[in-house]
Amino acid sequence: MKNDLERRIRQTGMWLYQLIEDETPSIFRKDYWTGKVMDWCMHNEAFKVEMFRFIDVFPYLTRPESVAKHLQEYFCRPDQCFPVALQWGLRHLSPTSFAAKMVAKSMAKNIESMGAQFIAGATPQEAIGTLENLRAQGLAFTVDLLGEAVVSRQEEEVYLSRYLELLDFLGDASTRWAPLGGGSGNLDWGFAPKVNISLKPSALYSQMNPVAFDYGVDRAKERLRPIFRKAMERGAFVCLDMEHTALKNMTLALYRSLMDEPEFRDYPHTGLVIQSYLRDSEQDVRSLIEWARKRGRHCTVRLVKGAYWDAEVVWARQNQWPIPVFTRKHETDAQFEKLARIVLENHAVVSCACASHNIRSLAYVLELSKELRVPSDRLEYQVLYGMAEPVRSALKKAGLPLRLYTPIGEIIPGMAYLVRRLLENTSNESFLRLSFTEGVSREALLRDPLEILAEQSVEAAAPGPSMEIDAPPPFANEPPWDWTQSQVRRDFQQALTKVRTSFPVKVPLMVGGQKITGDREFASTNPNDMREVVGHVASAGRREVQEAIRAAKEAFAAWRDTAPRDRAAYLFKAAQIARSQRFELAALQVFEVGKSWKEADADVCEAIDFLEYYGREMIRLGTPQRMGHVPGEMSHLFYEPRGVAAVIAPWNFPLAISTGMTSAALVTGNTVVYKPSSLSPVIGWRMVRLFEEAGLPSGVLNFVPGPGSVVGDILVSHPDVAMIAFTGSKDVGLNILQRAHETAPSASMIKNVVLELGGKNAIIVDADADLDEAVVHVLQSAFGYQGQKCSACSRLIVLEENYDKFIARLKAAAESLELGPVEDPKNLMGAVIDASAKAKVLEYIQVGRSEGKVLVERSFGDPNGHYVPLVIFTDIQPHHRLAQEEIFGPVLSVLKVSSFDEALDVANGTPYALTGAVFSRSPENIDKAKRAFRVGNLYINRGCTGAIVGRHPFGGFKMSGIGSKAGGPDYLLQFMVPRNVVENTLRRGFAPSEE
Amino acid sequence: MKNDLERRIRQTGMWLYQLIEDETPSIFRKDYWTGKVMDWCMHNEAFKVEMFRFIDVFPYLTRPESVAKHLQEYFCRPDQCFPVALQWGLRHLSPTSFAAKMVAKSMAKNIESMGAQFIAGATPQEAIGTLENLRAQGLAFTVDLLGEAVVSRQEEEVYLSRYLELLDFLGDASTRWAPLGGGSGNLDWGFAPKVNISLKPSALYSQMNPVAFDYGVDRAKERLRPIFRKAMERGAFVCLDMEHTALKNMTLALYRSLMDEPEFRDYPHTGLVIQSYLRDSEQDVRSLIEWARKRGRHCTVRLVKGAYWDAEVVWARQNQWPIPVFTRKHETDAQFEKLARIVLENHAVVSCACASHNIRSLAYVLELSKELRVPSDRLEYQVLYGMAEPVRSALKKAGLPLRLYTPIGEIIPGMAYLVRRLLENTSNESFLRLSFTEGVSREALLRDPLEILAEQSVEAAAPGPSMEIDAPPPFANEPPWDWTQSQVRRDFQQALTKVRTSFPVKVPLMVGGQKITGDREFASTNPNDMREVVGHVASAGRREVQEAIRAAKEAFAAWRDTAPRDRAAYLFKAAQIARSQRFELAALQVFEVGKSWKEADADVCEAIDFLEYYGREMIRLGTPQRMGHVPGEMSHLFYEPRGVAAVIAPWNFPLAISTGMTSAALVTGNTVVYKPSSLSPVIGWRMVRLFEEAGLPSGVLNFVPGPGSVVGDILVSHPDVAMIAFTGSKDVGLNILQRAHETAPSASMIKNVVLELGGKNAIIVDADADLDEAVVHVLQSAFGYQGQKCSACSRLIVLEENYDKFIARLKAAAESLELGPVEDPKNLMGAVIDASAKAKVLEYIQVGRSEGKVLVERSFGDPNGHYVPLVIFTDIQPHHRLAQEEIFGPVLSVLKVSSFDEALDVANGTPYALTGAVFSRSPENIDKAKRAFRVGNLYINRGCTGAIVGRHPFGGFKMSGIGSKAGGPDYLLQFMVPRNVVENTLRRGFAPSEE
Repeated sequence: MKNDLERRIRQTGMWLYQLIEDETPSIFRKDYWTGKVMDWCMHNEAFKVEMFRFIDVFPYLTRPESVAKHLQEYFCRPDQCFPVALQWGLRHLSPTSFAAKMVAKSMAKNIESMGAQFIAGATPQEAIGTLENLRAQGLAFTVDLLGEAVVSRQEEEVYLSRYLELLDFLGDASTRWAPLGGGSGNLDWGFAPKVNISLKPSALYSQMNPVAFDYGVDRAKERLRPIFRKAMERGAFVCLDMEHTALKNMTLALYRSLMDEPEFRDYPHTGLVIQSYLRDSEQDVRSLIEWARKRGRHCTVRLVKGAYWDAEVVWARQNQWPIPVFTRKHETDAQFEKLARIVLENHAVVSCACASHNIRSLAYVLELSKELRVPSDRLEYQVLYGMAEPVRSALKKAGLPLRLYTPIGEIIPGMAYLVRRLLENTSNESFLRLSFTEGVSREALLRDPLEILAEQSVEAAAPGPSMEIDAPPPFANEPPWDWTQSQVRRDFQQALTKVRTSFPVKVPLMVGGQKITGDREFASTNPNDMREVVGHVASAGRREVQEAIRAAKEAFAAWRDTAPRDRAAYLFKAAQIARSQRFELAALQVFEVGKSWKEADADVCEAIDFLEYYGREMIRLGTPQRMGHVPGEMSHLFYEPRGVAAVIAPWNFPLAISTGMTSAALVTGNTVVYKPSSLSPVIGWRMVRLFEEAGLPSGVLNFVPGPGSVVGDILVSHPDVAMIAFTGSKDVGLNILQRAHETAPSASMIKNVVLELGGKNAIIVDADADLDEAVVHVLQSAFGYQGQKCSACSRLIVLEENYDKFIARLKAAAESLELGPVEDPKNLMGAVIDASAKAKVLEYIQVGRSEGKVLVERSFGDPNGHYVPLVIFTDIQPHHRLAQEEIFGPVLSVLKVSSFDEALDVANGTPYALTGAVFSRSPENIDKAKRAFRVGNLYINRGCTGAIVGRHPFGGFKMSGIGSKAGGPDYLLQFMVPRNVVENTLRRGFAPSEE
Repeated sequence: MKNDLERRIRQTGMWLYQLIEDETPSIFRKDYWTGKVMDWCMHNEAFKVEMFRFIDVFPYLTRPESVAKHLQEYFCRPDQCFPVALQWGLRHLSPTSFAAKMVAKSMAKNIESMGAQFIAGATPQEAIGTLENLRAQGLAFTVDLLGEAVVSRQEEEVYLSRYLELLDFLGDASTRWAPLGGGSGNLDWGFAPKVNISLKPSALYSQMNPVAFDYGVDRAKERLRPIFRKAMERGAFVCLDMEHTALKNMTLALYRSLMDEPEFRDYPHTGLVIQSYLRDSEQDVRSLIEWARKRGRHCTVRLVKGAYWDAEVVWARQNQWPIPVFTRKHETDAQFEKLARIVLENHAVVSCACASHNIRSLAYVLELSKELRVPSDRLEYQVLYGMAEPVRSALKKAGLPLRLYTPIGEIIPGMAYLVRRLLENTSNESFLRLSFTEGVSREALLRDPLEILAEQSVEAAAPGPSMEIDAPPPFANEPPWDWTQSQVRRDFQQALTKVRTSFPVKVPLMVGGQKITGDREFASTNPNDMREVVGHVASAGRREVQEAIRAAKEAFAAWRDTAPRDRAAYLFKAAQIARSQRFELAALQVFEVGKSWKEADADVCEAIDFLEYYGREMIRLGTPQRMGHVPGEMSHLFYEPRGVAAVIAPWNFPLAISTGMTSAALVTGNTVVYKPSSLSPVIGWRMVRLFEEAGLPSGVLNFVPGPGSVVGDILVSHPDVAMIAFTGSKDVGLNILQRAHETAPSASMIKNVVLELGGKNAIIVDADADLDEAVVHVLQSAFGYQGQKCSACSRLIVLEENYDKFIARLKAAAESLELGPVEDPKNLMGAVIDASAKAKVLEYIQVGRSEGKVLVERSFGDPNGHYVPLVIFTDIQPHHRLAQEEIFGPVLSVLKVSSFDEALDVANGTPYALTGAVFSRSPENIDKAKRAFRVGNLYINRGCTGAIVGRHPFGGFKMSGIGSKAGGPDYLLQFMVPRNVVENTLRRGFAPSEE
């Protein structure tokens, strides 16, 4: 039976191929410019990268000379070796020369015509001719309105009205159209509305965020209702498109929840997309079918392969998440067939829109539907406008109901779509490429994907690399929670509840392994509601700190003599314990320091990362390095701890930074006296307990919360303290440095001081920046955790060329952010840490009012929390206090500049040098920034916060600190002294040949 | 003809083999303990190392339990995996147990009998029976008196009298002996005195040092005359033995010069050794023959292969000198034949003593002598007593004149000899081993070595590894001068003369490329004779220093932006220039800072090393490191300069340390304001000129000699100085650190301070230390450059077990050192740097008199120089000022301790942690020291000074400094700030697969 079906599938496939005859997809036809370029791209990966990147930036280039300049930067760099033909004849031209401008103009025409291949027109009015032409050829369509990424309420509104207008416009026009397939009335082929639209939910609600899942679904539903109402009114079909997997579960929930509403319950002409490259697509489609069956309603499933494969893989790997997509093309093909069978078997409740250009897939669906006797009104075929014309012809000639996915929109917002299509076509595994340019045989292309997979699995059974016994697995970052998983959200909510029941936590000192509660105490409160007391914390006095130092000194020798690998094992153990407490550790941060869910989770992950990373680093550094390699001597360089380390930690990354500094000091063999910030002592205590639970010997880590004026003061000046690791403000840090180096006569060691201080970080937005990305990243960098990060963006330097457009989008986006107490996951931003932070921010806002103009000012919150408004100032000058001083709050200053060089000057023009970012698509400017934007951590086309251990060693210079980067390969060296031991191995003229 | 000779050689060889019959050398006979041990050694390299080291230390072990303990440490360490049989059954025994002591005793007996195999007896009286027995068998002898290394005049005297007594004793005894070979009178075989002695010149003059070649030859001649006189009187033969190549030229010169003296001119019974493994042995032998011919006199050449091969290779490679020996055994064999031919062809003036165990070599000489018709009184054969008995039998059976090289002496001093013999026997290429244990065929062993070499050359013609274009060759240390070369000594002497003619040098300031001479000036004088003014030096004032900082600041941007590889090129250029001025640069140091020739040369070599090493290090660090390796982003960590660096340098390594700090600052991209010590400004100026000649851009390096109170003060506190590199005293350093960290509000950077400060360095002499080595290294470490090194040994910690013996040898040796103005190369030690240093040292000597007892006090010099006596105090306690405070002069304090643990406690018990050394042959104590002797640079069985760039990264901790080791892989990091640039490479869902 199966074999018989398989035989028929191949027969049908061969028949479809015959129907194609000799046609080639126009994109591959080398008599056209596009075909030539595609050919080059397929044969030169480096060229493809530059070409697609150029196409991406192209719509932003408004003048021929900037087109010419970018062409040169992309294709004629000295370090590249493209054949002369691929340099567009520009290598030796000035971008402003007549010849260069001519090249640019012809390039522009070519790219526009490339775009026109896939996009029916800029507006419905412009596209209507094309659409009606398609219908005249017997082809239905579904219209997708291309748009920029939507980043604000304002943009949502624009988008919404465009769709409403589209429905009206097409509805009106459709009255003129004869139904396809010889039917009558409003339905093509007797079942499909003539008007059919596709839309992305994210285009209608910009703040969609899985962490606030239900809230996001509700907001999106609000936005979608008018469209569905209008569609019902017009009898049109609405399909929800599917984008990245991050939004998939929300889109599925949104669709079902909306369709469950009484007004839509009975409307049959809706559907959504299932991407068969997703590993969990089967489960999704089954639960959708079950829902439909239960509700007794009908919907359409557009079955696709999926168009975001590269990005899904990259994001998953960056987050250390399981890769959500199949990594082999044939798995996706097999899954497509599996899903098609499920959908077709359930034709009673779901219709199938089979969207593929793969002849094998199409033949499978065709034959299976025959075998399952699927009624003809339950199945249609879809292909993309402008692609795979031969496939489209064959399907048409085969007399199958066929719909074209037809985008309408401007070229700028269309570029993302264009690049996606080009990628698809040029991918090494593209069915079209294999069929039409690689000359793979039809027989091979029509094989059952499962059969191919079975063969591949055998091939892949090679043995893995052998592992060093004893060695921990290579370092990998702790994966942040995937908030699309409902279980994660539930667990976090429960952790919040559970943690709260422990309040107020009683926090003791810990000295030499003894927990001490004295008479002095202070309280730690919730910044979002200071009536909530998170903990009562014992306060160390002069005597306790001195005892802690003595305990650490006593514990030093044994700890120093513990093997590096064994010290690392304590860190790995602590990491394991922290991992088991991740929800609680993060939940506590929501209350004690006012971190949003995601920020709190990121802090816990970073703490775990430090433990795992420094543990491995110490194992690496614990192996002595052979020096010199001359015969007759063995010379080794190795490292030893310094002694007692004082760790003075801040509150803003209360677990991560404390854990980073402490674990670095511990794993290198120092003993530690740890003073947490008085604003986050409960979290500090949790860290101490992690190490305690990991079995760290008594006295190795001591805990002395209390006022800086007492505790900090003694730690800094005590002669038995060998080093100080401090993260905090510049003024305190400089004072520590000075005090620490008033070396006492009784000191046994010159103190080493590692300081991580403040920043006044800038993001530069270049004239050709991708504004979709820039807006989102700037807001996240400036206002994430209320701007209370030393890495936060507090200056925005914008090139005048696109200043107005960018600022308008930024303002609208900032006004769309959700603000309020961070216990509610929907809120990006809540209260600042305490009253004095609030006062300081408010003072700077006053200064800002006099120095610049308010672009955005959003007050929120209530008097029970330390709320300050989110403020963006424009017209700030480089010398203004707002452009020079660290504010550490949600205040962003915008500076307008006229050139990229000026932007760099301004960016570098503060006493700090911590982080920075640049949004640009000019290779030359990117190179320039890499060289000359002198900060510790520079990010290109990314926000300036969120450094990741091991990937982004973190720390700055100038007044931003002294010492080497946390989470980087040089960090641990600061906690140790180097030693060299040289053994003369020549004795009596006899040296072992080589030991 | 050649082929005919070759045929005959092989025939003769086969005949000699037949004469051997089935005899095996007793050392390989497994029915004896020695044979078994040799067998194990030949099959287990690690065991061989431990065995030979154990044999080396054994004579020092006076009690059975220490024998047992050492056996355990050598053979039963947990990290070793010798078969149980090779652990002597000791693994689980306590060293003090009865069983262990039994093992130790039997071991002692075995080793003693092993020694007895090669040594005829402890004294001539004890050995006479053996000697007479030999003669009774028809064998002649030559006696070598084994002795400890001679380290003092006192030991010379003892040695001298032993030889004189030996000559008398043998002379008397010989009257009883019938001549061998049927001759009559005093001569064996009619030509060879019955009494024949061999002696090493170094045993008669302990201060032999090639740098003072003629002086050493004269002194050695003085010591040798009595022996030659006595030999003439007794009609005995005297042969000068040859040791390491370092003394070869002196021995050759000494022999000829002595034999040219009228009283010895006509005495025919003398000779010396030519080692055919030396590449220049042909030249030596030819010039000896020419000398003999010219003088019309006769001498004997004992032709040997050479016994110090391992050590010669090690020393040459450590010094980066050409390897003086042939590296392939067959080359040596071929050279032996070549030299034999030369000697035999010149039998008119030289006799040949053919000393070999190699049957092929013997057969060659035998046949060649026939062919050349060498008279029978011109050739004898020699073999070693106790070795190669079968060869000896064969030669005897062949009726050839045969002499045995027969050592007499105690087992302790004999151990060096014993180990040399064991090494020879067990070497993979040993003819005896190949013949008698490996079963290599006689045919193969009799082949012409030239023929084998010709085959090997073909085999070795493989291509070398490919080199990176552009990359400099791998770092190699600058080879110090080989003072055995007369040209080197002449060139240095000429450089002294030449440099002196330039005095007083006019030294200007250099600011922004301008040489400035102001009205303020100071003089730099010769410490050994302060009447000599070396230079008149412009003195920078406040204004000039500020201008220098401004110039450096202005030059910074362009220099920073110069590629690391290009900056490195300036260093390589400067190194090349320094190399061409090596003699002058060193000669200047003799005058300006009072360095001896060798110390001055070492300083210049080290300066060149810094340039070459840091240049390469910057090239290494100039390549950004990829971080994280996640897809979709390129993250790189790289380093950038800090800004203006102040380099404040000391006078004691006036070129090396200045160049090290300056070149590190420069190559990392900083600009420099360099303040030389006011005691070595002329050398400082020479360094500046090296960079100037290398073409360093103006302003990148600025030169501001002048008083610390003005120049240093501004440099330290100026807000535009980004970092300070200081090497000097603790007090100044701590003051700099504190002042530098009073960060000014206008500072653009937190200053980074790299401090290299003082030391109070100890050498521990363990109970089982090799005293021959310990005495020499301690004196060199304590008194080299008058003790004016931060690494100098100023505490000597001696285990009580061998305290008396060691101290006695040390005292005698210290009293034998040559002292005086260092312009004369014979003097190890001259004046200290200036009057204030002198006053300080004298003050400490006063303190020492009250705290301890004077062991040695040697006053010397005259009032024109800053001379202080060389002093050694004993009975110093750990808390004494002499054991705690840095003196920086030629004052050594001895502390007696009762255990190794106590030694470590005392060693670690100062505020400093710079260098240290341990002389021990206990693996356990060595391991303990490596772990617990906590200093920056620890040396095992070596002195504690003389760290070499790249091999011994240098620097300490505690109060000895802050920062990382000079000449090591982490040093340059301190001059830079790390930056991380992260590019998000994902655009429009598309990331290059991997760039």
